[in-house]
Order: sequence, then structure tokens, then C-alpha cells
Amino acid sequence: MSSSSHAFRLASRPVGMVKRDDFDYTEETVPDPADGEMLVKVLYISLDPAMRGWMNEGRSYVPSVGIGEVMRAIGVGRVVESRNPKFAVGDFVSGLFGVQEYAISDGRGVTPANPALAPLPVYLSTLGMPGMTAYFGLLEVGQPVEGDTVVVSGAAGAVGSVVGQIAKIKGCRVVGIAGGQEKCDYIVKDLGFDAAIDYKSEDVRAALKELCPDRINVYFDNVGGDILDNVLTRLARGARIALCGAVSQYNAEGPTKGPANYMALLVDRARMQGFIVFDYADRYVEAAIEMAGWMGAGTLKTREDIVDGLETFPDTLLKLFKGENLGKLIIRVADQKDGDA
Amino acid sequence: MSSSSHAFRLASRPVGMVKRDDFDYTEETVPDPADGEMLVKVLYISLDPAMRGWMNEGRSYVPSVGIGEVMRAIGVGRVVESRNPKFAVGDFVSGLFGVQEYAISDGRGVTPANPALAPLPVYLSTLGMPGMTAYFGLLEVGQPVEGDTVVVSGAAGAVGSVVGQIAKIKGCRVVGIAGGQEKCDYIVKDLGFDAAIDYKSEDVRAALKELCPDRINVYFDNVGGDILDNVLTRLARGARIALCGAVSQYNAEGPTKGPANYMALLVDRARMQGFIVFDYADRYVEAAIEMAGWMGAGTLKTREDIVDGLETFPDTLLKLFKGENLGKLIIRVADQKDGDA
Repeated sequence: MSSSSHAFRLASRPVGMVKRDDFDYTEETVPDPADGEMLVKVLYISLDPAMRGWMNEGRSYVPSVGIGEVMRAIGVGRVVESRNPKFAVGDFVSGLFGVQEYAISDGRGVTPANPALAPLPVYLSTLGMPGMTAYFGLLEVGQPVEGDTVVVSGAAGAVGSVVGQIAKIKGCRVVGIAGGQEKCDYIVKDLGFDAAIDYKSEDVRAALKELCPDRINVYFDNVGGDILDNVLTRLARGARIALCGAVSQYNAEGPTKGPANYMALLVDRARMQGFIVFDYADRYVEAAIEMAGWMGAGTLKTREDIVDGLETFPDTLLKLFKGENLGKLIIRVADQKDGDA
Repeated sequence: MSSSSHAFRLASRPVGMVKRDDFDYTEETVPDPADGEMLVKVLYISLDPAMRGWMNEGRSYVPSVGIGEVMRAIGVGRVVESRNPKFAVGDFVSGLFGVQEYAISDGRGVTPANPALAPLPVYLSTLGMPGMTAYFGLLEVGQPVEGDTVVVSGAAGAVGSVVGQIAKIKGCRVVGIAGGQEKCDYIVKDLGFDAAIDYKSEDVRAALKELCPDRINVYFDNVGGDILDNVLTRLARGARIALCGAVSQYNAEGPTKGPANYMALLVDRARMQGFIVFDYADRYVEAAIEMAGWMGAGTLKTREDIVDGLETFPDTLLKLFKGENLGKLIIRVADQKDGDA
């Protein structure tokens, strides 16, 4: 075990797009766990759109990351020292370990990850927060019924790809919106979506009209902005919009663009509803069991885009916001065997 | 009975604020009812914010008024000729009779109005569409529970005043937003709201913060625009926004202003939901009975602002959009006794 730990700490609150200089890359002594704590060697770090919001000041569903603090991130790691009776050295665990090589944890919010059931990175994608977000956002907020037309944006992403596949499992017609031909091919040919719209090269509004002749019953929104506004013009009566994110707006300078066509909610007796996956924490296990079953049956596929090296973090985060990843974006900090006690 | 009938017909689709020239004032021969139809002498005409939308082209919950057609309006009148077995000469009725002195109706959507139970104008206000809109929008979409903080905009209007009073009946804390001291005094002193915000002279956001210390559980939105955006910053977790209208935007040129703070729906796990009162038509009687009971008990007050003369229609409509009315705005076309057969 190394005696030093590298970390990315928040150096400044970004204005507009995140920059390399918004982080300090530090080398620190590996701390000792206090009573009730454990030391986790971080193996994989999840890169998520929500990180951009965590870097801002202001009221949100979790506190901002403070200047000078280790950047918040979900990760998978292995317990290398434990003074917490619930976790033993050698356990693989997932939790908010931050963008660093070693993390101290008191065990709160930490869940087991079993590499015999699924590769460790899957605990950051389909069996992790993105998968839970897709599962509860679609089923609890979107409430699709068989035969519905379901549209999802960010459709090739970690959340969107699971949303579309679950909607297919539930008997819906599924149209995904993604950026670029490669992503569109992926969701249709590999994941079984009924159709895809490439927002970078197509007129989204015209494509929705063509591909959703019975209009849209459920829209799972990961992006906000113009795509949300276009979807609003094509809602079916009683439609449900599950509001998961607005990645198109996260790095925008100036005020967020509100959906100008929101009065379609009135005309179409529709609703737009936000949710936070943490609210469903007591049902994660139930969801993971059902999704693992679908993965075993081959109806739910998962894909991870793994980048090597903690030091790539700022650039890899930019890759996420530029939409250059295909599959859940994850940084490999260390090999699984490096976690061997 | 006169042999001629005056009417306002739509002459052009307004751009921005409605103008006098957008209507033609015509004099026509009173038509004869065909088999199954009746002739209604119009006594009162309701002026409603929704009229502005009816004048636009484009998809909505009802077709646009065509150029050259009589302007759509709800009215109360009296049957003066009938070839419809369900309606007899002398009956008082409410329905979509248009902005004119005499209307032909086949009886669809026509409901009885009993002047012995309530003055005829009340069938256009609290016991009519505005009252039904308030009742179903608040109770079915807003779903207030005792102790909730309920905020309503357009609070002195025909819909808003009923929303606030029903919320009080249901045990909520009620804050109304209205324009001008007179309206604010009216809703607090006469209608029993807990507090009022004068959006013309106060900082709405600061006032909401002060007057809603436990944040906002239900917002009934009649106005859209900046007030909606301010409310979004003060939502309680799980809040419900009932989207009834956006009168601040109806006469706007250029695109509607979308709610820039809509991502508060995510942070606060809140929903924004539109509704159309017509969807509850099969429950109007149930609602009218309950509201008539509250009116009899003195817990639900109604107020009408009655302007004399059909020929005032364009100016009276402008009065509505300028917010100059206090109580439900209605034009008296003829006296009730004029309807005597």
C-alpha cells in the first residue's frame, strides 16, 4: 500500500464550462481511519453530469463541494483497513469516495459490490446510481404502460440507455435522442430501441413528428434546452415528463433557458415532475435484483467507457460534457488486484 | 323580440395585445332555429383570459375561432324559441353562445341556470367555468392537505379568488398574489386569505420568502412569467404546481418566456401539471352542489364586475388583460326581464 494519496480538490467555482484550473491535483499522506471508520483504496471513479451542479454554490438536493475539498464522486473500492465492524478488509464497496486514491469512510451510504456477480464498473453504471436513476425515474415518475411511446434524451448515456431498454421490456415503443451516428446505431442495433434521432444532424422536431405518430406518452429528460422544447410540442394527452437532468444547460453561462413551450402541459393535460434517486434508496436492492435478472436474460445490456488514470480526471470530465463517451464514463484508478490485501 | 342581432366577429388574428380592429361589429338578422335547435337571447357574456388563446392559430385544447366567425364566449341567456325537446321557451341556460345578442344552439354543452338559487351572473363565475376551474384545478391537481401553504396568482380574479377560499376551507395557509392595493385588501379582508402580495409594488421573491416560511406546497398558476419563476425558487419538497394559465404571456409578442427556474422541480421533487376544466364535465354538478353549500354557509364569497352593453366588448376585454377588473368580468347584454317570453 502506498503511503501517499493523490486527489483532485475543487480550486474554484467554474464559470461556464469546467476547466482544468478549477481543480488542484494534490499529493497527501494516506490518513488513518478513526474508530468506526475504514480506509478504502479507490479502484474506479464514476463521472456523472450531476458533478457539474455539485461544483456550483446555491441550494440543491445536496450541499455544494466546498473550495479546497476533495471533488465529490461515487466510486468502487476495496477496504484496506477497517475499524468499522460492518466492513472487513478485502470487501469491495461502493460509495461517495471522492476523486482520490484513498478515502476514509464511516460506512454511511456504502454498499457492497460483488465482482463475482458483475464486473466492478457495472456497480457504477447499470447496478449503480445511473441504473437506479433510470429504473425509478422511468417506472415511478414516467409510469409507462404497454403500448406507450417513450422518448429519452441522452439515450446512449448511462441513464438513458437503461431507460430505453426498460421501456422496451415494458412493451413500449422507444425513440432515443443522442448525438452522432455511432451513438444512434448503438441504441438501435445493440440495445433494441425502435428508432434514434441524431440531434447533431437532424431536425429533432420533424423527426419526432415522423417517429412518434401517436405522439409522446413519456419523455425522460436528461438534457433540457431545445430538445425539451421540441418534445413539448409533441406530447400526447396525459403525458408524463420525468425530469432527470439538463446537461445542455449545466455549463451554460447566464440564466438557464426555461422551456418556452411549457404551456403544452396545459393543452395536453400533461405533467413535468422532478425526482432525486436518493429518495428511493430503500428500494435499491429490489431494483438491482430485477435489473440483474434482466441482464442475465440478455434484455438489459450495459456498457462502460473506461479511461485509465486518476490524473486524467479534468479532461475525462470534459469528455463527458462534450458527449464524447459511449457508455458509462468511468476512470480506472487502480486494478482490482491492487486492492488485494 | 328584436329582428336583428349584433355580434362581434373575429376580423384578424391579433399580434400582441388585442385591439379594437381585431373584431368586426356586425348587425344581422336573427336566425330561425332548425329542428333540434333553439334560439337563445343572450343576457350575460363572460370575459375570460382563455379568449386570447382562442384567437390564435395553432393546436390547442379547442379549435381556434375562425376569421369571420362570431367570437367564442360563454354566456347566460334565455330560450326564446325552441325546437329542442330538452329546452323550453323561458328556460335560463348557460353555454358557449358567443359574443352576440342571439345565439342558435343545438343544446350540446348547455346547462340550466336557476336565478332563484343564485343571480344569473354567478353561473358565469363561481358556479360556472371559473369556479369549476378553481375547484378541480386546486383539489385534483394541486391536492392540498391541511396545513399546506397554498399560493395563488391572479388571486383577486374569478378563478384565483375561489382557489384561495377553497384552500382556506381545506385548512391551508393561503397567500394570494394580485396587482394593486385594492385587490390585495379585497382578498385578505373580504375573502380571508392569510396574506397578499402586490406584484406591482412588491418584490415578489422577497415577499414569498417572508410570507411562506415553510415554503410552498401548492401553487395555482394563472399568470406564468416572472411570478412563476419566483415561486419555483420557494417550493417545498414534493410541491404541486397546477398550471391553469399564463395571462402575463397571452398578449406577448414573440416567444413565450419559459420558466428559467424549472429545474427546481428536480431539486424539490416537485411537479408542474396542466389541466383543462372540460375534462371534469361529468363532475360539474357535484362541484356546484358543494360550492353552493359553501356559499350558503358564507365561507365562499363571489363577486362579479358587470359592464353594461355588448358594444363595449373589445374595451372590456382589454380591461381584463390590463387587470383592471375586480371580480369576475361580465358584460350585461340585456336585462333578465328582457328574456321574458
